Amino acid sequence: MFKINENYLKLPGSYLFSTIAKKVAAYTEANPDRSIIRLGIGDVTQPLAPAIIDALHSAVDEMAHAETFHGYAPDLGYEFLRSAMAKNDYQSRGCEIQADEIFISDGAKGDSGNIQEIFDQDNKIAVCDPVYPVYVDTNVMAGRTGTYDPKSEVWSDVIYMPCTADNHFVPELPKEVPDLIYLCFPNNPTGSAITKDQLQVWVDYANQKGSVIIYDAAYEAYISEDDVPHTIFECEGARTCAIELRSFSKNAGFTGVRLGATVIPKELRCGDVMLHSLWARRHGTKYNGAPYIVQKAGEAVYSEAGKAQLKEQIAYYMRNAKTIYGGLREAGYTVSGGVNSPYIWLKTPDNMTSWEFFDYLLTKVGVVGTPGSGFGPSGEGYFRLTAFGTYENTLAAVERIKHL
Amino acid sequence: MFKINENYLKLPGSYLFSTIAKKVAAYTEANPDRSIIRLGIGDVTQPLAPAIIDALHSAVDEMAHAETFHGYAPDLGYEFLRSAMAKNDYQSRGCEIQADEIFISDGAKGDSGNIQEIFDQDNKIAVCDPVYPVYVDTNVMAGRTGTYDPKSEVWSDVIYMPCTADNHFVPELPKEVPDLIYLCFPNNPTGSAITKDQLQVWVDYANQKGSVIIYDAAYEAYISEDDVPHTIFECEGARTCAIELRSFSKNAGFTGVRLGATVIPKELRCGDVMLHSLWARRHGTKYNGAPYIVQKAGEAVYSEAGKAQLKEQIAYYMRNAKTIYGGLREAGYTVSGGVNSPYIWLKTPDNMTSWEFFDYLLTKVGVVGTPGSGFGPSGEGYFRLTAFGTYENTLAAVERIKHL
Repeated sequence: MFKINENYLKLPGSYLFSTIAKKVAAYTEANPDRSIIRLGIGDVTQPLAPAIIDALHSAVDEMAHAETFHGYAPDLGYEFLRSAMAKNDYQSRGCEIQADEIFISDGAKGDSGNIQEIFDQDNKIAVCDPVYPVYVDTNVMAGRTGTYDPKSEVWSDVIYMPCTADNHFVPELPKEVPDLIYLCFPNNPTGSAITKDQLQVWVDYANQKGSVIIYDAAYEAYISEDDVPHTIFECEGARTCAIELRSFSKNAGFTGVRLGATVIPKELRCGDVMLHSLWARRHGTKYNGAPYIVQKAGEAVYSEAGKAQLKEQIAYYMRNAKTIYGGLREAGYTVSGGVNSPYIWLKTPDNMTSWEFFDYLLTKVGVVGTPGSGFGPSGEGYFRLTAFGTYENTLAAVERIKHL
Repeated sequence: MFKINENYLKLPGSYLFSTIAKKVAAYTEANPDRSIIRLGIGDVTQPLAPAIIDALHSAVDEMAHAETFHGYAPDLGYEFLRSAMAKNDYQSRGCEIQADEIFISDGAKGDSGNIQEIFDQDNKIAVCDPVYPVYVDTNVMAGRTGTYDPKSEVWSDVIYMPCTADNHFVPELPKEVPDLIYLCFPNNPTGSAITKDQLQVWVDYANQKGSVIIYDAAYEAYISEDDVPHTIFECEGARTCAIELRSFSKNAGFTGVRLGATVIPKELRCGDVMLHSLWARRHGTKYNGAPYIVQKAGEAVYSEAGKAQLKEQIAYYMRNAKTIYGGLREAGYTVSGGVNSPYIWLKTPDNMTSWEFFDYLLTKVGVVGTPGSGFGPSGEGYFRLTAFGTYENTLAAVERIKHL
């Protein structure tokens, strides 16, 4: 008789955003006349930029003719996209990342969930708390997290690194040495950033202790301050300790287009085994490449027209971020994030729990946000709003919250 | 100090098709003037059908305007595509599969590699021999296959079910009871089919023994004979023992577009746990949906125009299959497959090994095929040719082989 992977049964409840979707659906069904403004899930609302639309149409046309049709993509991505990323995201910043160290994928969610597969079952992970749920949940599925205490909402074999107002939402080096360290900056969910000097401390620590940093740079396009690094490879020594995850979802609005990349420098080794080889083997065995038309769309992100149009798109969302940040402060909330990030992180008022505030906001003014506690125990008492709505909806939501 | 997943190091050599690509690249570089005809990897050559191109353009246009822009897709796929599949692939054949039992993905390679994750580490797998390498390799990565004997090319904890001329390339029930049984019909690589009555025996066996059948139906569009089932759910009792993998790669030429689906009936349980729930949880946690534009392209496969155009496309490839099958027989080869399948399976002449024949064919006449031994020990002495080339190339390749 077959058996299931029992680790799945250890997962408490369902994936955060599924729960939110269900709650909102139930509320909408019960109150069909209420207008809902969604500033919860980090989904974008602006259409794809014209340069990207042009690239998509043109790639679709290629698929219509035998001479220009594209079948299976190269396992690791088309050279044209890998080169564009190497040049624009890395070499232009003085980082020595080569095209063949970049693995194209269908998005950072998959990559951030799959990357743990190439590591030993007994490796110990460290995560910021609060944190994007995928890092922990995928390690739970792999049996790497020990037992769950429903009361504290803590896994026995995970090292939590609290990010709270006390440390300005930047974690301190852990007391116990982890094997894998997940870092995401600008941070989801807190919206906080890390300076290059602060990140250098982590790179030095990882090199000294023999840890690997899995660095999620999904939000780098929102960085506005000079001392905040756009990639971990700006730090000296990162090539021997870091893997970086890149997304096209937030810098180019590809949430429904699906494109991402993982960068693994060839110097990153365990003994004489390159992690680069392991990930290449995984890609070759379990993945069949991102669609040609999507990779062409990705290339357009780096065209002159694409860059200019996306700069405007980011500015549009950052105006929203400012609107939320300023409006909530004015209304007396304690707010952070929003400067180098599309996320605004607020302290819930009146000692409400995160889910209490979620229900309060939904039922009183029809605004949907994300409960901080859904991201980990230290997120309790916090709440995330995103800048990805339309400007009109963002303004309206802030007005509603102001008049609560 | 972090450690790697040592199971990866157990994998012998690199993925079959990567090895072929490297050999061909080396030969081409050394002999730039030789014309190469590729009938090796199962990649298609015909362009996307007009109905699909139209759907893609129209979906791209939707992405250009805020009112019709699509962000994150529903985790499990858009309702429009799940319904079209349920209706056309299942209900029209009298199979009770509902839309919400279909999980849309970016292709069958990923699904067939990932599906093992929801099962226990100690489950024992059975595979046909020869077999699509992904089934075994992904179980190796998960540590489920024991030790590898390089001499026999056999894993100690895998149940091999030989498919040879003796049993007409349809496996016999294994002596040891497996937990997971991978079946692919019409078969890759042998091109053989299974009748509904023969498949019913497997379904009954699985139900009796408590095994799960993972049924890969990627090639069902090529079935030409009436008694060959298009889905395992044509068999009685399959809802309690079978998972089916579907692909758009071969029926609609989506190898570079990427779309697939996994079907898990809600009756398939381990105790009171639905495998459906586990896979839904995996999708929700590690996957972010297939691109909207690709799912719209998938919907067009089921439109009246799409169906008619794809019928012609399949007929085009099946003419190739007949050409290869007939031509090789004429030339004195022992050949099978090609009737319900785009694959032709031939016995290598003069007791050559599969790789010897690969090199012979490449260097003598510039034709690339796939060595049978790359698919497992019982594939030794066999060779696969595919019908996915152009008609002109297929004719030319057959002429070249005839005059060897």
